Amino acid sequence: MHKYLGLLVLIAGAAGSLFLFNTNRVSAQTQHSTAVFDADGKLKLPTGYRGWVFVGAPLTPNALNNGKANFPEYHHVYIEKQNVDAYLKTGSFPEGTVIVKELTRVLNPTFPDGSRTEPSGRGYFNGEYNGIDVTVKDSKRFAQTNNWGFFTFGHHPLPYSETAAESSVAQCAGCHIANVAQTDMTWIQFYPLLRDKKGY
Amino acid sequence: MHKYLGLLVLIAGAAGSLFLFNTNRVSAQTQHSTAVFDADGKLKLPTGYRGWVFVGAPLTPNALNNGKANFPEYHHVYIEKQNVDAYLKTGSFPEGTVIVKELTRVLNPTFPDGSRTEPSGRGYFNGEYNGIDVTVKDSKRFAQTNNWGFFTFGHHPLPYSETAAESSVAQCAGCHIANVAQTDMTWIQFYPLLRDKKGY
Repeated sequence: MHKYLGLLVLIAGAAGSLFLFNTNRVSAQTQHSTAVFDADGKLKLPTGYRGWVFVGAPLTPNALNNGKANFPEYHHVYIEKQNVDAYLKTGSFPEGTVIVKELTRVLNPTFPDGSRTEPSGRGYFNGEYNGIDVTVKDSKRFAQTNNWGFFTFGHHPLPYSETAAESSVAQCAGCHIANVAQTDMTWIQFYPLLRDKKGY
Repeated sequence: MHKYLGLLVLIAGAAGSLFLFNTNRVSAQTQHSTAVFDADGKLKLPTGYRGWVFVGAPLTPNALNNGKANFPEYHHVYIEKQNVDAYLKTGSFPEGTVIVKELTRVLNPTFPDGSRTEPSGRGYFNGEYNGIDVTVKDSKRFAQTNNWGFFTFGHHPLPYSETAAESSVAQCAGCHIANVAQTDMTWIQFYPLLRDKKGY
Protein backbone atom coordinates (compact mmCIF):
# COMPACT_ATOMS: atom_id res chain seq x y z
CA MET A 1 0.00 0.00 0.00
CA HIS A 2 2.78 2.40 0.99
CA LYS A 3 4.24 2.41 -2.48
CA TYR A 4 1.05 3.87 -3.99
CA LEU A 5 0.43 6.37 -1.23
CA GLY A 6 2.69 9.13 -2.56
CA LEU A 7 1.11 8.80 -5.97
CA LEU A 8 -2.42 8.96 -4.56
CA VAL A 9 -1.59 12.05 -2.53
CA LEU A 10 -0.16 13.73 -5.61
CA ILE A 11 -3.24 12.88 -7.67
CA ALA A 12 -5.54 14.17 -4.95
CA GLY A 13 -3.56 17.40 -4.73
CA ALA A 14 -3.83 17.88 -8.46
CA ALA A 15 -7.55 17.07 -8.30
CA GLY A 16 -8.01 19.71 -5.61
CA SER A 17 -6.33 22.24 -7.84
CA LEU A 18 -8.39 21.25 -10.86
CA PHE A 19 -11.56 21.54 -8.83
CA LEU A 20 -10.76 25.18 -8.16
CA PHE A 21 -9.95 25.90 -11.79
CA ASN A 22 -13.18 24.26 -12.86
CA THR A 23 -15.45 26.15 -10.48
CA ASN A 24 -13.93 29.40 -11.73
CA ARG A 25 -14.50 28.39 -15.31
CA VAL A 26 -18.09 27.32 -14.74
CA SER A 27 -18.99 30.53 -12.95
CA ALA A 28 -17.53 32.57 -15.80
CA GLN A 29 -19.53 30.59 -18.34
CA THR A 30 -22.85 30.80 -16.57
CA GLN A 31 -22.62 34.54 -15.85
CA HIS A 32 -23.99 35.66 -19.20
CA SER A 33 -24.88 39.23 -18.35
CA THR A 34 -24.69 41.89 -15.73
CA ALA A 35 -27.99 43.32 -17.05
CA VAL A 36 -30.78 43.05 -14.49
CA PHE A 37 -34.39 43.60 -15.53
CA ASP A 38 -37.30 44.07 -13.16
CA ALA A 39 -40.71 42.43 -13.54
CA ASP A 40 -41.87 45.22 -15.89
CA GLY A 41 -38.87 44.75 -18.20
CA LYS A 42 -37.19 47.89 -16.94
CA LEU A 43 -33.40 47.77 -16.79
CA LYS A 44 -31.74 48.46 -13.45
CA LEU A 45 -28.97 51.04 -13.36
CA PRO A 46 -25.68 49.14 -13.92
CA THR A 47 -23.03 49.34 -11.21
CA GLY A 48 -19.27 49.11 -11.31
CA TYR A 49 -18.99 50.17 -14.94
CA ARG A 50 -16.28 52.79 -14.30
CA GLY A 51 -14.01 49.83 -13.62
CA TRP A 52 -14.81 48.15 -16.96
CA VAL A 53 -12.68 48.48 -20.08
CA PHE A 54 -12.84 51.97 -21.57
CA VAL A 55 -13.08 51.99 -25.36
CA GLY A 56 -13.48 55.62 -26.40
CA ALA A 57 -14.52 59.17 -25.58
CA PRO A 58 -16.47 60.95 -28.31
CA LEU A 59 -17.07 64.56 -27.36
CA THR A 60 -19.99 66.66 -28.59
CA PRO A 61 -19.73 69.99 -26.74
CA ASN A 62 -22.97 71.90 -26.19
CA ALA A 63 -21.21 74.97 -27.59
CA LEU A 64 -20.72 73.26 -30.98
CA ASN A 65 -24.33 72.00 -31.05
CA ASN A 66 -26.49 75.12 -30.74
CA GLY A 67 -26.06 75.12 -26.98
CA LYS A 68 -27.70 71.73 -26.49
CA ALA A 69 -25.97 68.56 -27.67
CA ASN A 70 -28.09 65.42 -27.88
CA PHE A 71 -25.48 63.77 -25.68
CA PRO A 72 -23.96 66.46 -23.43
CA GLU A 73 -20.97 66.36 -23.69
CA TYR A 74 -18.16 63.76 -23.28
CA HIS A 75 -19.34 60.18 -23.93
CA HIS A 76 -17.19 57.71 -21.98
CA VAL A 77 -17.90 54.22 -23.27
CA TYR A 78 -17.25 51.11 -21.15
CA ILE A 79 -17.60 47.39 -21.90
CA GLU A 80 -16.72 44.40 -19.71
CA LYS A 81 -13.41 42.81 -20.65
CA GLN A 82 -14.74 39.37 -21.62
CA ASN A 83 -17.09 41.03 -24.12
CA VAL A 84 -14.36 43.26 -25.57
CA ASP A 85 -12.24 40.14 -26.00
CA ALA A 86 -15.08 38.27 -27.67
CA TYR A 87 -15.67 41.14 -30.10
CA LEU A 88 -11.98 41.27 -30.99
CA LYS A 89 -12.08 37.53 -31.71
CA THR A 90 -15.39 37.21 -33.52
CA GLY A 91 -16.50 40.67 -34.70
CA SER A 92 -19.71 40.53 -32.70
CA PHE A 93 -20.62 40.84 -29.03
CA PRO A 94 -21.81 37.87 -26.95
CA GLU A 95 -25.41 37.54 -25.86
CA GLY A 96 -25.83 39.55 -22.64
CA THR A 97 -23.21 42.20 -23.45
CA VAL A 98 -23.83 45.53 -21.71
CA ILE A 99 -22.36 48.74 -23.15
CA VAL A 100 -22.43 51.80 -20.91
CA LYS A 101 -22.02 55.34 -22.21
CA GLU A 102 -21.54 57.77 -19.34
CA LEU A 103 -21.65 61.46 -20.11
CA THR A 104 -19.63 64.18 -18.44
CA ARG A 105 -19.92 67.92 -18.98
CA VAL A 106 -16.88 69.83 -20.19
CA LEU A 107 -15.08 71.72 -17.45
CA ASN A 108 -15.86 75.46 -17.14
CA PRO A 109 -15.72 76.71 -20.74
CA THR A 110 -14.14 80.11 -21.37
CA PHE A 111 -14.13 80.22 -25.21
CA PRO A 112 -17.28 80.35 -27.37
CA ASP A 113 -16.57 76.80 -28.65
CA GLY A 114 -16.74 75.41 -25.10
CA SER A 115 -12.99 75.03 -24.69
CA ARG A 116 -10.68 76.48 -22.03
CA THR A 117 -6.92 76.81 -21.58
CA GLU A 118 -4.93 74.67 -19.16
CA PRO A 119 -1.16 74.10 -18.88
CA SER A 120 -1.41 71.26 -21.42
CA GLY A 121 -3.07 73.50 -24.00
CA ARG A 122 -6.42 74.80 -25.15
CA GLY A 123 -9.14 72.21 -25.29
CA TYR A 124 -11.69 70.26 -23.31
CA PHE A 125 -11.45 68.63 -19.90
CA ASN A 126 -13.89 66.37 -18.04
CA GLY A 127 -16.39 68.14 -15.83
CA GLU A 128 -19.08 66.52 -13.70
CA TYR A 129 -20.89 63.28 -14.50
CA ASN A 130 -23.94 64.10 -16.58
CA GLY A 131 -25.98 61.01 -17.39
CA ILE A 132 -25.88 57.48 -18.64
CA ASP A 133 -27.20 55.50 -21.60
CA VAL A 134 -26.98 51.72 -21.74
CA THR A 135 -27.41 49.10 -24.46
CA VAL A 136 -27.95 45.40 -23.78
CA LYS A 137 -27.65 42.57 -26.29
CA ASP A 138 -30.47 40.07 -25.81
CA SER A 139 -31.72 38.41 -28.98
CA LYS A 140 -34.99 37.23 -27.39
CA ARG A 141 -35.97 40.42 -25.62
CA PHE A 142 -34.86 42.81 -28.37
CA ALA A 143 -35.36 40.79 -31.56
CA GLN A 144 -37.18 43.77 -33.13
CA THR A 145 -34.14 46.05 -32.93
CA ASN A 146 -31.31 43.87 -34.21
CA ASN A 147 -30.88 42.11 -30.82
CA TRP A 148 -30.08 45.23 -28.82
CA GLY A 149 -32.19 47.18 -26.33
CA PHE A 150 -31.51 50.86 -25.57
CA PHE A 151 -32.07 52.59 -22.26
CA THR A 152 -31.39 56.01 -20.82
CA PHE A 153 -31.11 56.83 -17.14
CA GLY A 154 -31.19 60.58 -17.80
CA HIS A 155 -28.86 63.22 -19.18
CA HIS A 156 -28.23 65.20 -16.01
CA PRO A 157 -25.92 65.18 -12.98
CA LEU A 158 -26.04 62.43 -10.34
CA PRO A 159 -28.12 60.79 -9.06
CA TYR A 160 -29.30 58.93 -12.15
CA SER A 161 -32.65 57.12 -12.39
CA GLU A 162 -32.68 53.72 -10.67
CA THR A 163 -34.47 51.98 -13.56
CA ALA A 164 -35.19 52.75 -17.20
CA ALA A 165 -37.82 51.53 -19.65
CA GLU A 166 -36.66 50.62 -23.15
CA SER A 167 -36.26 53.71 -25.34
CA SER A 168 -38.29 53.94 -28.53
CA VAL A 169 -36.86 53.08 -31.94
CA ALA A 170 -37.01 56.77 -32.85
CA GLN A 171 -35.04 57.73 -29.74
CA CYS A 172 -32.14 55.28 -30.09
CA ALA A 173 -32.27 52.05 -32.08
CA GLY A 174 -33.25 53.72 -35.35
CA CYS A 175 -30.02 55.66 -35.59
CA HIS A 176 -27.94 52.58 -34.76
CA ILE A 177 -29.83 50.51 -37.36
CA ALA A 178 -29.30 53.21 -39.97
CA ASN A 179 -25.59 53.71 -39.27
CA VAL A 180 -23.93 50.79 -37.53
CA ALA A 181 -25.98 47.65 -38.22
CA GLN A 182 -22.91 46.09 -39.88
CA THR A 183 -20.75 46.49 -36.74
CA ASP A 184 -23.18 44.82 -34.32
CA MET A 185 -25.11 48.08 -33.74
CA THR A 186 -22.06 49.69 -32.11
CA TRP A 187 -19.97 52.73 -33.15
CA ILE A 188 -16.81 50.68 -33.51
CA GLN A 189 -15.35 53.34 -35.83
CA PHE A 190 -14.92 55.66 -32.80
CA TYR A 191 -13.34 53.09 -30.46
CA PRO A 192 -9.62 52.53 -31.18
CA LEU A 193 -9.36 49.39 -29.05
CA LEU A 194 -12.10 47.68 -31.09
CA ARG A 195 -11.49 49.36 -34.43
CA ASP A 196 -7.70 49.17 -34.70
CA LYS A 197 -7.24 45.78 -33.00
CA LYS A 198 -3.86 46.53 -31.46
CA GLY A 199 -4.67 44.72 -28.22
CA TYR A 200 -4.34 46.03 -24.68
CA MET B 1 -3.32 2.09 6.72
CA HIS B 2 -6.56 1.99 4.74
CA LYS B 3 -8.45 3.86 7.42
CA TYR B 4 -6.22 6.92 7.12
CA LEU B 5 -6.03 6.88 3.36
CA GLY B 6 -9.28 8.79 2.70
CA LEU B 7 -8.29 11.43 5.22
CA LEU B 8 -4.84 11.82 3.67
CA VAL B 9 -6.31 12.13 0.22
CA LEU B 10 -8.68 14.83 1.50
CA ILE B 11 -5.87 16.73 3.19
CA ALA B 12 -3.74 16.55 0.07
CA GLY B 13 -6.64 17.80 -2.02
CA ALA B 14 -7.15 20.75 0.30
CA ALA B 15 -3.41 21.44 0.29
CA GLY B 16 -3.45 21.48 -3.50
CA SER B 17 -6.21 24.07 -3.41
CA LEU B 18 -4.51 26.18 -0.75
CA PHE B 19 -1.30 26.11 -2.72
CA LEU B 20 -3.08 27.76 -5.60
CA PHE B 21 -4.71 30.39 -3.42
CA ASN B 22 -1.44 31.16 -1.72
CA THR B 23 0.62 31.57 -4.84
CA ASN B 24 -1.97 34.01 -6.15
CA ARG B 25 -2.00 35.98 -2.95
CA VAL B 26 1.76 36.15 -2.60
CA SER B 27 2.25 37.29 -6.16
CA ALA B 28 -0.34 40.05 -5.67
CA GLN B 29 1.34 41.25 -2.47
CA THR B 30 4.89 41.29 -3.72
CA GLN B 31 4.11 42.87 -7.08
CA HIS B 32 4.44 46.49 -5.96
CA SER B 33 4.76 47.97 -9.39
CA THR B 34 4.35 47.12 -13.02
CA ALA B 35 7.17 49.55 -13.82
CA VAL B 36 10.22 47.76 -15.22
CA PHE B 37 13.55 49.59 -15.51
CA ASP B 38 16.55 48.36 -17.44
CA ALA B 39 20.15 48.52 -16.21
CA ASP B 40 20.49 52.11 -17.47
CA GLY B 41 17.42 53.27 -15.56
CA LYS B 42 15.31 53.44 -18.69
CA LEU B 43 11.65 52.54 -18.29
CA LYS B 44 10.27 49.75 -20.45
CA LEU B 45 7.08 50.44 -22.37
CA PRO B 46 4.17 49.35 -20.14
CA THR B 47 1.83 46.66 -21.44
CA GLY B 48 -1.82 45.93 -20.81
CA TYR B 49 -2.67 49.47 -19.77
CA ARG B 50 -5.73 49.71 -22.04
CA GLY B 51 -7.34 47.25 -19.65
CA TRP B 52 -6.59 49.39 -16.57
CA VAL B 53 -9.06 51.80 -15.01
CA PHE B 54 -9.71 54.82 -17.21
CA VAL B 55 -9.87 58.10 -15.28
CA GLY B 56 -10.28 60.86 -17.85
CA ALA B 57 -9.83 62.11 -21.41
CA PRO B 58 -8.53 65.68 -21.70
CA LEU B 59 -8.54 66.78 -25.32
CA THR B 60 -6.20 69.41 -26.76
CA PRO B 61 -6.88 69.46 -30.52
CA ASN B 62 -4.03 70.55 -32.78
CA ALA B 63 -6.46 72.92 -34.46
CA LEU B 64 -6.98 74.84 -31.19
CA ASN B 65 -3.22 74.95 -30.48
CA ASN B 66 -1.67 76.65 -33.52
CA GLY B 67 -1.68 73.38 -35.42
CA LYS B 68 0.59 71.60 -32.96
CA ALA B 69 -0.63 70.70 -29.49
CA ASN B 70 2.00 69.72 -26.92
CA PHE B 71 -0.01 66.53 -26.40
CA PRO B 72 -1.74 65.68 -29.69
CA GLU B 73 -4.68 65.30 -29.16
CA TYR B 74 -6.88 63.14 -26.87
CA HIS B 75 -5.14 62.14 -23.62
CA HIS B 76 -6.57 58.84 -22.31
CA VAL B 77 -5.37 58.34 -18.76
CA TYR B 78 -5.19 54.88 -17.17
CA ILE B 79 -4.24 53.73 -13.66
CA GLU B 80 -4.33 50.23 -12.16
CA LYS B 81 -7.38 49.61 -9.98
CA GLN B 82 -5.52 48.96 -6.72
CA ASN B 83 -3.81 52.35 -7.06
CA VAL B 84 -7.04 54.18 -7.90
CA ASP B 85 -8.58 52.59 -4.81
CA ALA B 86 -5.64 53.62 -2.65
CA TYR B 87 -5.85 57.21 -3.89
CA LEU B 88 -9.57 57.34 -3.15
CA LYS B 89 -8.85 56.10 0.37
CA THR B 90 -5.75 58.10 1.24
CA GLY B 91 -5.42 61.03 -1.17
CA SER B 92 -2.06 59.86 -2.44
CA PHE B 93 -0.83 57.09 -4.72
CA PRO B 94 1.10 54.07 -3.41
CA GLU B 95 4.79 53.64 -4.09
CA GLY B 96 5.15 51.99 -7.49
CA THR B 97 2.02 53.51 -9.04
CA VAL B 98 2.20 53.81 -12.82
CA ILE B 99 0.02 56.34 -14.65
CA VAL B 100 -0.25 55.98 -18.42
CA LYS B 101 -1.42 58.77 -20.70
CA GLU B 102 -2.05 57.44 -24.19
CA LEU B 103 -2.71 59.95 -26.94
CA THR B 104 -5.02 59.51 -29.90
CA ARG B 105 -5.48 61.88 -32.82
CA VAL B 106 -8.94 63.28 -33.48
CA LEU B 107 -10.75 61.56 -36.33
CA ASN B 108 -10.65 63.31 -39.75
CA PRO B 109 -11.42 66.95 -38.93
CA THR B 110 -13.65 68.87 -41.33
CA PHE B 111 -14.09 72.18 -39.42
CA PRO B 112 -11.27 74.67 -38.73
CA ASP B 113 -11.45 73.86 -34.99
CA GLY B 114 -10.65 70.20 -35.66
CA SER B 115 -14.19 68.95 -35.16
CA ARG B 116 -16.44 66.98 -37.53
CA THR B 117 -20.12 66.07 -37.63
CA GLU B 118 -21.42 62.59 -36.86
CA PRO B 119 -24.97 61.37 -36.12
CA SER B 120 -24.45 62.15 -32.41
CA GLY B 121 -23.53 65.76 -33.17
CA ARG B 122 -20.61 68.00 -34.01
CA GLY B 123 -17.50 67.35 -32.05
CA TYR B 124 -14.43 65.17 -31.68
CA PHE B 125 -13.99 61.42 -32.04
CA ASN B 126 -11.01 59.19 -31.36
CA GLY B 127 -8.66 58.65 -34.27
CA GLU B 128 -5.48 56.57 -34.28
CA TYR B 129 -3.21 55.97 -31.31
CA ASN B 130 -0.60 58.70 -31.24
CA GLY B 131 1.88 58.23 -28.42
CA ILE B 132 2.32 57.51 -24.77
CA ASP B 133 3.65 59.29 -21.69
CA VAL B 134 4.12 57.49 -18.38
CA THR B 135 4.75 58.57 -14.80
CA VAL B 136 6.03 56.27 -12.08
CA LYS B 137 6.00 56.92 -8.35
CA ASP B 138 9.26 55.81 -6.77
CA SER B 139 10.45 57.89 -3.85
CA LYS B 140 14.03 56.57 -4.02
CA ARG B 141 14.58 56.84 -7.76
CA PHE B 142 12.76 60.16 -8.20
CA ALA B 143 13.29 61.95 -4.89
CA GLN B 144 14.37 65.10 -6.78
CA THR B 145 10.98 65.51 -8.50
CA ASN B 146 8.46 64.97 -5.69
CA ASN B 147 8.74 61.14 -5.92
CA TRP B 148 7.60 60.85 -9.53
CA GLY B 149 9.56 60.10 -12.70
CA PHE B 150 8.30 61.16 -16.13
CA PHE B 151 8.88 59.31 -19.39
CA THR B 152 7.74 59.69 -22.96
CA PHE B 153 7.71 56.92 -25.54
CA GLY B 154 7.01 59.34 -28.38
CA HIS B 155 4.10 61.39 -29.65
CA HIS B 156 3.45 59.56 -32.92
CA PRO B 157 1.51 56.55 -34.22
CA LEU B 158 2.42 52.97 -33.28
CA PRO B 159 4.89 51.45 -32.79
CA TYR B 160 6.08 53.38 -29.72
CA SER B 161 9.65 53.31 -28.42
CA GLU B 162 10.50 50.19 -26.44
CA THR B 163 12.26 52.10 -23.66
CA ALA B 164 12.44 55.70 -22.48
CA ALA B 165 14.97 57.66 -20.45
CA GLU B 166 13.64 59.95 -17.72
CA SER B 167 12.43 63.25 -19.17
CA SER B 168 14.04 66.45 -17.93
CA VAL B 169 12.42 68.64 -15.27
CA ALA B 170 11.80 71.30 -17.94
CA GLN B 171 10.03 68.77 -20.16
CA CYS B 172 7.61 67.31 -17.60
CA ALA B 173 8.14 67.40 -13.84
CA GLY B 174 8.43 71.19 -13.66
CA CYS B 175 4.89 71.76 -14.85
CA HIS B 176 3.53 69.13 -12.45
CA ILE B 177 5.48 70.64 -9.54
CA ALA B 178 4.17 74.12 -10.41
CA ASN B 179 0.52 73.07 -10.80
CA VAL B 180 -0.36 69.83 -9.06
CA ALA B 181 2.16 69.25 -6.26
CA GLN B 182 -0.71 69.30 -3.77
CA THR B 183 -2.57 66.42 -5.49
CA ASP B 184 0.35 64.00 -5.60
CA MET B 185 1.69 65.50 -8.85
CA THR B 186 -1.40 64.35 -10.75
CA TRP B 187 -4.11 66.35 -12.58
CA ILE B 188 -6.87 65.06 -10.31
CA GLN B 189 -9.03 68.08 -11.23
CA PHE B 190 -9.55 66.59 -14.72
CA TYR B 191 -10.38 63.03 -13.59
CA PRO B 192 -13.98 62.66 -12.35
CA LEU B 193 -13.42 59.24 -10.77
CA LEU B 194 -10.65 60.63 -8.55
CA ARG B 195 -11.91 64.19 -8.17
CA ASP B 196 -15.61 63.62 -7.46
CA LYS B 197 -15.22 60.40 -5.42
CA LYS B 198 -18.52 58.83 -6.50
CA GLY B 199 -17.04 55.34 -6.75
CA TYR B 200 -17.25 52.92 -9.64
